[in-house]
Amino acid sequence: MTTVNDILKYIETLAPKSMKEHWDNVGLLCGSAKQEVSKIMVALDPFESVCKEAADWGADLLVTHHPVIFQAPKAITDDDGVGRSLLQLIRSNISAINAHTNLDCAPGGVNDVLAAKVGLSHVQVLCPNGVDEEGRPWGLIRCGEVTSVSLQQFLSRVKAALGCDGLRYTDGGKPVCKVAVGGGSCASALRQVADAGCDTFVTADVKYNQFWDAKELGVNLIDAGHFATENPVVAVLAAKLQVAFPDVEVKISEIHADCMKFY
Amino acid sequence: MTTVNDILKYIETLAPKSMKEHWDNVGLLCGSAKQEVSKIMVALDPFESVCKEAADWGADLLVTHHPVIFQAPKAITDDDGVGRSLLQLIRSNISAINAHTNLDCAPGGVNDVLAAKVGLSHVQVLCPNGVDEEGRPWGLIRCGEVTSVSLQQFLSRVKAALGCDGLRYTDGGKPVCKVAVGGGSCASALRQVADAGCDTFVTADVKYNQFWDAKELGVNLIDAGHFATENPVVAVLAAKLQVAFPDVEVKISEIHADCMKFY
Amino acid sequence: MTTVNDILKYIETLAPKSMKEHWDNVGLLCGSAKQEVSKIMVALDPFESVCKEAADWGADLLVTHHPVIFQAPKAITDDDGVGRSLLQLIRSNISAINAHTNLDCAPGGVNDVLAAKVGLSHVQVLCPNGVDEEGRPWGLIRCGEVTSVSLQQFLSRVKAALGCDGLRYTDGGKPVCKVAVGGGSCASALRQVADAGCDTFVTADVKYNQFWDAKELGVNLIDAGHFATENPVVAVLAAKLQVAFPDVEVKISEIHADCMKFY
Amino acid sequence: MTTVNDILKYIETLAPKSMKEHWDNVGLLCGSAKQEVSKIMVALDPFESVCKEAADWGADLLVTHHPVIFQAPKAITDDDGVGRSLLQLIRSNISAINAHTNLDCAPGGVNDVLAAKVGLSHVQVLCPNGVDEEGRPWGLIRCGEVTSVSLQQFLSRVKAALGCDGLRYTDGGKPVCKVAVGGGSCASALRQVADAGCDTFVTADVKYNQFWDAKELGVNLIDAGHFATENPVVAVLAAKLQVAFPDVEVKISEIHADCMKFY
Amino acid sequence: MTTVNDILKYIETLAPKSMKEHWDNVGLLCGSAKQEVSKIMVALDPFESVCKEAADWGADLLVTHHPVIFQAPKAITDDDGVGRSLLQLIRSNISAINAHTNLDCAPGGVNDVLAAKVGLSHVQVLCPNGVDEEGRPWGLIRCGEVTSVSLQQFLSRVKAALGCDGLRYTDGGKPVCKVAVGGGSCASALRQVADAGCDTFVTADVKYNQFWDAKELGVNLIDAGHFATENPVVAVLAAKLQVAFPDVEVKISEIHADCMKFY
Amino acid sequence: MTTVNDILKYIETLAPKSMKEHWDNVGLLCGSAKQEVSKIMVALDPFESVCKEAADWGADLLVTHHPVIFQAPKAITDDDGVGRSLLQLIRSNISAINAHTNLDCAPGGVNDVLAAKVGLSHVQVLCPNGVDEEGRPWGLIRCGEVTSVSLQQFLSRVKAALGCDGLRYTDGGKPVCKVAVGGGSCASALRQVADAGCDTFVTADVKYNQFWDAKELGVNLIDAGHFATENPVVAVLAAKLQVAFPDVEVKISEIHADCMKFY
Repeated sequence: MTTVNDILKYIETLAPKSMKEHWDNVGLLCGSAKQEVSKIMVALDPFESVCKEAADWGADLLVTHHPVIFQAPKAITDDDGVGRSLLQLIRSNISAINAHTNLDCAPGGVNDVLAAKVGLSHVQVLCPNGVDEEGRPWGLIRCGEVTSVSLQQFLSRVKAALGCDGLRYTDGGKPVCKVAVGGGSCASALRQVADAGCDTFVTADVKYNQFWDAKELGVNLIDAGHFATENPVVAVLAAKLQVAFPDVEVKISEIHADCMKFY
Repeated sequence: MTTVNDILKYIETLAPKSMKEHWDNVGLLCGSAKQEVSKIMVALDPFESVCKEAADWGADLLVTHHPVIFQAPKAITDDDGVGRSLLQLIRSNISAINAHTNLDCAPGGVNDVLAAKVGLSHVQVLCPNGVDEEGRPWGLIRCGEVTSVSLQQFLSRVKAALGCDGLRYTDGGKPVCKVAVGGGSCASALRQVADAGCDTFVTADVKYNQFWDAKELGVNLIDAGHFATENPVVAVLAAKLQVAFPDVEVKISEIHADCMKFY
Repeated sequence: MTTVNDILKYIETLAPKSMKEHWDNVGLLCGSAKQEVSKIMVALDPFESVCKEAADWGADLLVTHHPVIFQAPKAITDDDGVGRSLLQLIRSNISAINAHTNLDCAPGGVNDVLAAKVGLSHVQVLCPNGVDEEGRPWGLIRCGEVTSVSLQQFLSRVKAALGCDGLRYTDGGKPVCKVAVGGGSCASALRQVADAGCDTFVTADVKYNQFWDAKELGVNLIDAGHFATENPVVAVLAAKLQVAFPDVEVKISEIHADCMKFY
Repeated sequence: MTTVNDILKYIETLAPKSMKEHWDNVGLLCGSAKQEVSKIMVALDPFESVCKEAADWGADLLVTHHPVIFQAPKAITDDDGVGRSLLQLIRSNISAINAHTNLDCAPGGVNDVLAAKVGLSHVQVLCPNGVDEEGRPWGLIRCGEVTSVSLQQFLSRVKAALGCDGLRYTDGGKPVCKVAVGGGSCASALRQVADAGCDTFVTADVKYNQFWDAKELGVNLIDAGHFATENPVVAVLAAKLQVAFPDVEVKISEIHADCMKFY
Repeated sequence: MTTVNDILKYIETLAPKSMKEHWDNVGLLCGSAKQEVSKIMVALDPFESVCKEAADWGADLLVTHHPVIFQAPKAITDDDGVGRSLLQLIRSNISAINAHTNLDCAPGGVNDVLAAKVGLSHVQVLCPNGVDEEGRPWGLIRCGEVTSVSLQQFLSRVKAALGCDGLRYTDGGKPVCKVAVGGGSCASALRQVADAGCDTFVTADVKYNQFWDAKELGVNLIDAGHFATENPVVAVLAAKLQVAFPDVEVKISEIHADCMKFY
Repeated sequence: MTTVNDILKYIETLAPKSMKEHWDNVGLLCGSAKQEVSKIMVALDPFESVCKEAADWGADLLVTHHPVIFQAPKAITDDDGVGRSLLQLIRSNISAINAHTNLDCAPGGVNDVLAAKVGLSHVQVLCPNGVDEEGRPWGLIRCGEVTSVSLQQFLSRVKAALGCDGLRYTDGGKPVCKVAVGGGSCASALRQVADAGCDTFVTADVKYNQFWDAKELGVNLIDAGHFATENPVVAVLAAKLQVAFPDVEVKISEIHADCMKFY
């Protein structure tokens, strides 16, 4: 018999709480650690539609990257999306666990998966925050190498690898050899990336001034989308859970997809 | 057909949100404004045991004085009392409404009920915060008059009227003529009470230094208990709800009682 | 003989300082109010390349939307872009004036120009901050109407009208009738836009969670780019300056273009 | 010849300043370290009546637990109790020393005396803050053992041992075996007490929600009064001072008693 | 029979509390409003030596410009000057009243006396904070006129008028016609003074950069000493008190003089 | 060929950045590290007049003690002195370096030069902040010894040594044997100086209450002027630069002098 607590402890081995940002909210955010689990749904976000899908499938547990509670709520009602997600989960007796910035930073987490997806070799943690119990460095950004290609070739490769509907970028004026990746909103690490000698940075949610900062620093800055850069970890996480808990049924959300399109 | 929203709007007429303290949390804190209501339970507190009683009885709505969410929670789990109350309510499809400091302050609210209970006449709002739409002053503390009695006689009367297991008090050295009342933790209004010429103040949760401040100011300060001073409003609120919504079944919690005893 | 101060006073009539955000920096940020002006360059941004272009052309004054100093600098050196812009301007004896959030908010400013560009009729200020001396309401966001079209048709129109290399959007599930526009980073006004009954919002620098919030609120949210949504005001501003100061040569920067591309 | 400074240094050995809370005010708060001392009065509080008693007796020094200055005063006048105490002391040439949270925490201080009074054995410091120069752990709360008794029996014992006029308590549903004590207002340590496996906690100034928290945690929580739980240290402190300074006359205040009564 | 309270109320008519700076501390800072007064000592500062002089003379009340308590003290002992002043006053049964920034600002206060001393005519309040009950403007700085003289002549006049041991100044390059005065540390009003068209500013405690700012602004800035610019009000205040309370003996401190000398 | 960066690195050896106060601004504050340098002007302050002198002389670099930018400017215009200095420097292609509190604290810096000027022997750092790479203690204040003289004799010596127009002082009542020095505004170190057993303290910008504090502490406190106490380091710094960079022409500002005079 597997409990929510068993899953929680296992996820803690993949993405220890000590690796999260101080402002973040991770772990068991809804339900009960003692609950028995026979079906786990895994998704990037605990949006209402995903919670409903989990309920319809009969899940006992929803495991996501983003937290179902970020701003602590003063009320839990169907007036807002967070309330609707929580009401759906609790009424359907589904517990919710998440691993957010701890999974971004952990070895084998969001950013190692992203680095692999875009084909980096000799991947390293940029400016590590520390080393884990096995002596592996951990931290937010990964950097690695590719055989030198033009920016256009690399854009083509990223778009295909991540299944993006489109990309936004600025041309830093260099071929692509040394690449940094940070899934989600990591553009504030731009100077760090430049200082490390990277010519190219793949991240998301990039703002106007950040594109210009990149141009000034001579870095190719690619916004490949928040969903597209983070979602690859979902399949990896689901697979690990299935191996660790063979008697539990693990399923990836089928309906969750990026709501942002290009025109 | 009555909805949660109908009840919410009615309670807003009894205790407008604009009368609440800035730090307080009132209104619909759990569930759905659109929910149909046929059974309402009323209680002072939304503790887990009360939520369970409401669920067993088949309530659609729980109306309380104290809020089910005060410190906004970062997680809703069965690890703590607030989480257990919320899980119980949501799983049993019970919405939750509360009126807290707005009900303390409103005409006909907690403190008018308390003033009546302890037998005050010529009751007035002490230092009103404003006037309501009907021109009635509103605010936290009430003061009124009693025919002059000794402090011991007045203690006996308060104990009987509120059904207290015991009282704590300091003797300010005066007979009881002009009395202020503030249900719950209102001892910080002591100086205001003294400045208004009251000889006696009935409130709860009084601390050591507040008893001494009262002695120094020559005020008889009586701690009649948080539950005992606030619970009388529950029956009044339930009766008003029943009158306003005759087709809905309204019931006062039978199990909720003070957990604090005297020895 | 026209001075920098004459231009400054004229721009103040178009975009009064009192309309700026409290955190913003606008007006004469570099040079001398007493300087004589015979050539004005106008551009969206005072980037180093634009300053150099102005110097090469022999400008006496650079008028921009974005400020050359935003974070007040502790040093002015060629180590960073702001320092390089300032050194270039001062060495070439070019003063610099800007109108930023005051021009966003002013009647006839950034957002009125944008509303006209995307073809809105019956344009109004959404939640005005006040009225100007002529009694016209002013504020950040504009909303207006279009003859009902599908979102795809509207995307096509916006892309053409603003000359965008691409667009990012989320589909709120409604045809396009009532449209709000906010040049630059205005997505935090999303709820306001939804509350006003708009079905569509054109702005820039939209983040992941904002696309999802729009979807939840049923609003078509279009990120048309910071440069593309704000740059149209440059030609309008240049034309006004030319009319107001016929003896001065006014020129729009030829090299300044968006550094962000789509793939 | 004994000076105030000699007493101050001795008290520092009993209750080092380094053990006080950061917000506290302890030591020589009034008078002169150089003053000669032949008569010391000892009391829990430096209220005006106690200062007058000390003056009438001819004391040179008043040693108390609570500080005569807590909120630093902007004026020293007979308009408030603190001013009246200070005026009385200074006019009668009485210096004032106190040991407050340092005496709560010190080995042999307020809480060790309280633990002994209520009959605890195997007394330990709960969650020590550190160890003193002799290697003894120090900190606020003490816990110890009693031969298992019913809560009613323990209440009777506490009431008798501390001479309380009454007690307030909540029944945690367990017999009394492992007891924590914290004189004065220590109820915020409740969770710590529960986590340490204590079934019973004796403290004072307990509020409504704290009684309920105790019930939820299954802890018998007893409010034995601020004065009653702290005053026992006065006799111990007076005795130690008399032994350390045999040529000085040490006397405990005769008039200082709790102003709070039960009905 | 005159009481401290009578004096306090009279001083309040000369220098209302509402005219003080928000950070200031004025009024009855030591003793008792009910005390009878037959002897008042008046001085600029309540230093220990002045308090001792007052005690030796048998004063009941010390009236000063500077407050005896500015930083609220955590202890009142002979370890520091403030403690020694308070101990001296209280042991000698002397109450202490002060009027500080309220007397600086009040009509007829510190700065009107100073303006008269240095021979200004057509004296006005610079940038008044408001008007008093009699419709007179009040505020910190005064400005007025002198028949045009050279700076050297004016320096000679100020030195003689205020009895200064020396002066420090910077030469703003202008003859002296329109003069601002601010007793004590008022140099931060320099820009205000320059904006008002004054050519000369007399104040005290001037710092290096303030002398340079004055030079840059073309203002003659004269540091005539804190004591020398403020002490003239003492005689005026003493005279007013003597007139208002003819039965009370009023005396100016004989020993209080500036401790700062020139070489 | 010498660059600005070479000078910067050399000054860093004399006054490491790590020795500056946290609020200070030091180093290359204007211009370019890559600029070639053939002429350096050295001065205490980068006032507009000094910048003009440097420009007229053809300087490439201005080295000062005080920073040209202290409060980071929101605009760089000829409306204020800082703007005028910066415009002058940049238009004349002069870079600007400064060493401020780091030079105050460094061995051989402002305060060691001052100590030597006033004739101290056995000079030590008072309360050192640390030791530098060579093991030498560093910090703000120096103290040393003089053969015992009267205060009047010492005042005469200081005035002559520093070329002061005048001195301000308070007489602490002791002959001069052990002297502390702190160039510029260091009077807040007075208690430290007294605690170290110094009888005399030479600093500048002393305020009224600081003179009185000194009198109370029995310390002779001498205000010898901000310029006079700091300017001696300029010649020392210029000489060191000339030795280190023999091919560069180094010149001390001829026009910069104190703007503060005595009368």
